[in-house]
Amino acid sequence: MALMAKLVAGVDIGGTTLSVGIVPLAGGRPRAPRVADTVDERGGEAVVGQVCAMVRAAVDEVARAEVSGAEVAGVGVAAPGSLDRARGVVLESHNLGWFGLPLRDRVQAATGLPAIVENDANCAAYGEWWRGAGRGFRSVLGITLGTGIGGGIVMDGQPFLGATGAAGEIGHMTVEFGGRRCTCGDRGCLEAYASGPGIARTAAEGLGGGARSSLPELVEGDLGRITAATVHEAAVGGDAYATAVLARAARMLAAGIAGAVNLLGPDAVVVMGGVAAAGDLFFGPLARELGRPRFRSAVDACAVVPGALPGTAGVVGAAGVFRLRTGAVRG
Amino acid sequence: MALMAKLVAGVDIGGTTLSVGIVPLAGGRPRAPRVADTVDERGGEAVVGQVCAMVRAAVDEVARAEVSGAEVAGVGVAAPGSLDRARGVVLESHNLGWFGLPLRDRVQAATGLPAIVENDANCAAYGEWWRGAGRGFRSVLGITLGTGIGGGIVMDGQPFLGATGAAGEIGHMTVEFGGRRCTCGDRGCLEAYASGPGIARTAAEGLGGGARSSLPELVEGDLGRITAATVHEAAVGGDAYATAVLARAARMLAAGIAGAVNLLGPDAVVVMGGVAAAGDLFFGPLARELGRPRFRSAVDACAVVPGALPGTAGVVGAAGVFRLRTGAVRG
Repeated sequence: MALMAKLVAGVDIGGTTLSVGIVPLAGGRPRAPRVADTVDERGGEAVVGQVCAMVRAAVDEVARAEVSGAEVAGVGVAAPGSLDRARGVVLESHNLGWFGLPLRDRVQAATGLPAIVENDANCAAYGEWWRGAGRGFRSVLGITLGTGIGGGIVMDGQPFLGATGAAGEIGHMTVEFGGRRCTCGDRGCLEAYASGPGIARTAAEGLGGGARSSLPELVEGDLGRITAATVHEAAVGGDAYATAVLARAARMLAAGIAGAVNLLGPDAVVVMGGVAAAGDLFFGPLARELGRPRFRSAVDACAVVPGALPGTAGVVGAAGVFRLRTGAVRG
Repeated sequence: MALMAKLVAGVDIGGTTLSVGIVPLAGGRPRAPRVADTVDERGGEAVVGQVCAMVRAAVDEVARAEVSGAEVAGVGVAAPGSLDRARGVVLESHNLGWFGLPLRDRVQAATGLPAIVENDANCAAYGEWWRGAGRGFRSVLGITLGTGIGGGIVMDGQPFLGATGAAGEIGHMTVEFGGRRCTCGDRGCLEAYASGPGIARTAAEGLGGGARSSLPELVEGDLGRITAATVHEAAVGGDAYATAVLARAARMLAAGIAGAVNLLGPDAVVVMGGVAAAGDLFFGPLARELGRPRFRSAVDACAVVPGALPGTAGVVGAAGVFRLRTGAVRG
């Protein structure tokens, strides 16, 4: 039966959004997609139940819609935090309040399907390598810009895990020694500048220093309400200050990327996530910064591209990793 | 014959020093060691001749000294710059003025022995993994502190090369965005702060700003003569300013190491080279900085240790890579 399956459910448990879809192994967008807010006032336990219900509903929808070949072979789950892959357990996810949660077994029990659990950033990188902007490259570093900055590496067709299973974490590279405080407790991390909250903070700090901009008007004078999306909105509207704030974040990301590329030598870097949606306002300064004089043979050889699967890289990648790890499925 | 060989010649062509030794595959220090200055007013071509003569002399010395089993199977050459490994050509080494130099063929012609060429930082990392402080670890990032900061990665018993063959380059990670100008043309690179010249510059700048120290006396008032060795000498003598300068370099290196470890997830980092010889004056602040609050699961899992093969890691590693790449030798 499994050998006949052409579908795998993918689940992406993000800090703000839960995404589920049924991924056709032959290609194409996830079917029966479902999206919900991760925040649940009932706590992390309720999120587990919600995820399982979303997967069941998506599997049922596809089963009803298809005539044959609609078996779903299993479930790939992209989860944040540190993992015990062999047992499918989330060891520690502070965002979700999960400590030692047997996520794989919970999903298997709720769906009656085999499941695997992999890190969310690794799944997104794998998704872009398998089906997106990283296709055809031998090695890919995927960077997800959002509330934080996550990263995952795909090498020779496999998620590259490193000694602790957490390789690819680019967000906490020091780009400004002794600089801005980061949520991790250190100072000057890339995440403190080029994540969504980092961009918002840069914008608010400059306005506090007297910069002229349409931003205060956009947030009705409450600078605490500025987000990366607000900055982007102002920049699209021609606001020079907001444009410069986005450009500075992009330049700092470029510095981090150049360092990572010289260390790791990937064939491609795929930049994913919310901030990446700013398009040329972000990727223009990023490319110009990468092109400046620097130690660069590896940088020159590396393609740096925006992701091609906005919103679905994690879902697609989680399904892809399920296919990879369970010999039963052939896509 | 080759199957019987128990010896391989190792050559390390550094920016300041040429080192040659005959490496016993069974273990132990290189025999018939030879060291010379790299600088030759006759230019890079003379350096090639000198290297070949040193190898021939070392091979002859070992042959005279040994009764049997003294065949040298071949020559491993650690060379700086970018390489064409398949052809054994140094594509570009600005220090030596080598552009498209067929180093492997030159060494083979001069010695009558098969040869391979590998990057110097990769050889040093491989040497420490094979015979030094990295022994027994599955993956090692080797960092060489000297005139520059080089790096090499050993993964699953092989030099890890990356897409361009230059992976492991940690020296040009940005640790201070927009900071000090680096020789590569960029600003704020780790190398600009934690290399020997970087340390000397930090010391001289602070003295220019009025810091109190015994350093000016040590260099007879000529601050341009301050080197990392002078700073070390002053620190050993109890100079608080020199101690703080070394500590700052160590802390910036720690920031670079933490970033590299979170990205790559190696089991160990081996710190080699001149600056590393400063011992606790350097490794104390380095360890304390790594222990500070930061994003750290990979950092906690990674051993950070000084190299165990001072002066010979490159020679040993070059011989080891020869053994690895030529199936003919069994050590």
